[in-house]
Amino acid sequence: MIFKLDDSFNETFIVSEKTHNGFIEVFNDHNPLHTNTDFAIEKGFKGKVMHGNILNGFLSYFIGECLPTKNVIIHSQEIKFKNAVYLNDRLNLSMVISGVYDSVNAVEFKFRFINPDSLVVAVGKMQIGILE
Amino acid sequence: MIFKLDDSFNETFIVSEKTHNGFIEVFNDHNPLHTNTDFAIEKGFKGKVMHGNILNGFLSYFIGECLPTKNVIIHSQEIKFKNAVYLNDRLNLSMVISGVYDSVNAVEFKFRFINPDSLVVAVGKMQIGILE
Repeated sequence: MIFKLDDSFNETFIVSEKTHNGFIEVFNDHNPLHTNTDFAIEKGFKGKVMHGNILNGFLSYFIGECLPTKNVIIHSQEIKFKNAVYLNDRLNLSMVISGVYDSVNAVEFKFRFINPDSLVVAVGKMQIGILE
Repeated sequence: MIFKLDDSFNETFIVSEKTHNGFIEVFNDHNPLHTNTDFAIEKGFKGKVMHGNILNGFLSYFIGECLPTKNVIIHSQEIKFKNAVYLNDRLNLSMVISGVYDSVNAVEFKFRFINPDSLVVAVGKMQIGILE
């Protein structure tokens, strides 16, 4: 097995205007929390809150492109959103392998995204399969 | 509370070329399972497998745009991928409210996505908060 327990990985992502607008263009989620600064501030945030599922897109990129093998498929994914993400936030994704299941060719990761203020904005875990 | 236990919702989504290409454009996940038909077939699939996180984008749209109130935010989300999704698949999303927590203004949904062959392609749950 190419993956070992406690192996860790780091990537940086920026929630740019291009990412935010692109996500809205693809999925049509124009909810005012994500698109209307006045609405978001009225609800107690510092500004427009970025869609949480943008972070799930970053996880897709991480699994698909940043591992030592491309022979992977996501089995399951869970995420808990802890703090709001704002436009142009630079997020550090840290991933650690929390389980290696050789008999079924599966690997479990735990992850967290940390923002520029060192706040954890999201945590979760994923299970992937290694394709033969 | 505007939401009641067992309330149910249905939406239809198509994983079109525009969705697939747009997702790749935004997130840069060019993993060959999603972009190379020969590779995907060699791995035992019928064709290019659509990114699982496209379904998470559809969930963003559902929560942000299809509920009786726009005053919502996603707290947590989990998804298990059961069967591959292919280009141009029309997916039915069925959502049911599995928990209503008035004291913390939160609602839990269970969902599943079903493909044109009536196969469940993904199941999961989400918790959202109702913004005051």
